[in-house]
Amino acid sequence: MEITTTYAIEILGTISFAISGTFAAMQKRLDPFGVLIIAFVTSIGGGTVRDLLLGDTPVAWMRNVNYCLLILVTSMLTMFFKTQIKKFKVTLFLFDSLGLGLFTLVGVQKGIVFGLEPGICVALGTITGCFGGIIRDTLLNTIPLIFRKEIYATACILGGILYFALLYFNLKADVAKILVIAFITTLRIVVVKYKLALPKFGY
Amino acid sequence: MEITTTYAIEILGTISFAISGTFAAMQKRLDPFGVLIIAFVTSIGGGTVRDLLLGDTPVAWMRNVNYCLLILVTSMLTMFFKTQIKKFKVTLFLFDSLGLGLFTLVGVQKGIVFGLEPGICVALGTITGCFGGIIRDTLLNTIPLIFRKEIYATACILGGILYFALLYFNLKADVAKILVIAFITTLRIVVVKYKLALPKFGY
Amino acid sequence: MEITTTYAIEILGTISFAISGTFAAMQKRLDPFGVLIIAFVTSIGGGTVRDLLLGDTPVAWMRNVNYCLLILVTSMLTMFFKTQIKKFKVTLFLFDSLGLGLFTLVGVQKGIVFGLEPGICVALGTITGCFGGIIRDTLLNTIPLIFRKEIYATACILGGILYFALLYFNLKADVAKILVIAFITTLRIVVVKYKLALPKFGY
Repeated sequence: MEITTTYAIEILGTISFAISGTFAAMQKRLDPFGVLIIAFVTSIGGGTVRDLLLGDTPVAWMRNVNYCLLILVTSMLTMFFKTQIKKFKVTLFLFDSLGLGLFTLVGVQKGIVFGLEPGICVALGTITGCFGGIIRDTLLNTIPLIFRKEIYATACILGGILYFALLYFNLKADVAKILVIAFITTLRIVVVKYKLALPKFGY
Repeated sequence: MEITTTYAIEILGTISFAISGTFAAMQKRLDPFGVLIIAFVTSIGGGTVRDLLLGDTPVAWMRNVNYCLLILVTSMLTMFFKTQIKKFKVTLFLFDSLGLGLFTLVGVQKGIVFGLEPGICVALGTITGCFGGIIRDTLLNTIPLIFRKEIYATACILGGILYFALLYFNLKADVAKILVIAFITTLRIVVVKYKLALPKFGY
Repeated sequence: MEITTTYAIEILGTISFAISGTFAAMQKRLDPFGVLIIAFVTSIGGGTVRDLLLGDTPVAWMRNVNYCLLILVTSMLTMFFKTQIKKFKVTLFLFDSLGLGLFTLVGVQKGIVFGLEPGICVALGTITGCFGGIIRDTLLNTIPLIFRKEIYATACILGGILYFALLYFNLKADVAKILVIAFITTLRIVVVKYKLALPKFGY
């Protein structure tokens, strides 16, 4: 059961970020192969950086070709049905938020499996959630979303801390996972909808 | 014989990308040390990312100081003789194309040695071929060539597939290698000469 | 004694780069969490790339949560007392120079511990010193300082060579370390103060 949930979360996160990467690349008017590559790095970027930092190599997507196929099919379907989807910005944003919640949890859990301290696990979760988007934005030559805008990494960090708090109060792991994913995704959506932001530095 | 060919290919690829990096950096008007660093990352970037993903560390150039010396000498000679070479753009382009073909093959072969599936080997070849240029362009703060322009990664992917097809039909490995390198390099040159491109996404 | 000096150098370097990263991010008007992340990557970026290339994983900051706490506290104090500090540019620059000297030495020493050749050790020192700043500037979407301006990586390379020269003449290691740190930091400051630069390529 535990393992099934984890797989389901990883698959959903992979699909979400593949869609988000495809939309971002189409907005920049890349050709289909460029779009595929951006979909790919958005989807596997966070997990790859996490595995490299942990020394867990060859990295995950090399050991399981199914993730690559999943991204390929998702990205191609997204490109094919793009005309049916009018509001790109909203779509991109929703899938980005969902992927953020899903992958943050995957990263936190992997840190726990490696026996790292809670603070480092939260950092790993944040890296897994955020780095796909950071690499996507860096390659497309924009200041990464994470640094420009509303509470982004903050959502991951708070979600990671919430997960440890829930486990501390003996909540069932599967329930805690779903709560944390819902928390991160909802926080992102609420923050953007009401234009909440941390105050910035101005001189 | 097998091993000799592999070494020759790696050496040629290293030289090609060192020259291509040197030209790109001189065009951006960096100082000689900046040029050396860009030559270095262009030349070893792809192989380094490949080795990191595989967990084959310390990465290749740390184990063999000769590659570093080769890049140093190549880059310095290129800087020294730059006045003799008028058509920078063409030169940069030709060496970039040749390096692309050579390094793609090196990456595919390393994947085979690590016993990975053909699809992953093709991805490794593409990474080895393309990442030096991606890092070069990211550091020089331009959208990487690979995402802006003509069929680039596509050439690596098609070349990688061709290699497995040739091996499947029992072609001698050395002949297959030369064919694949020629295929990728020629495809790039033809594509740019006739301005072929995949259709882009427009809204 | 030897180990104590090494720790002191790493701690000072971490603080220097955390301050430098905090100032750079505040200048770009990021929100406090964005500032923390930039402070973090500036501080641990060089060492992380070094450890990845060596295959010494999980990377250093994951094994010792104290470095993360040190960066957190340093960055928060810097943000808090920013109004007291008028001349941001000078402050950023001085701490960047000091961090450069400290981290270059840390990298060279780690290369020696791993039994690598002197030339590779100097490269590792340069990577440890420079990559934090390169990642910082790349994420903030500017051409990295290292490629735009005055002798930067050059100071690391010359400092690394000086270290091996001093050891060759049987200088005590601790004295050699302090001399090299002073050399790199001073060279950076002199170079910028008198606007020394290597000649650039112009067409």
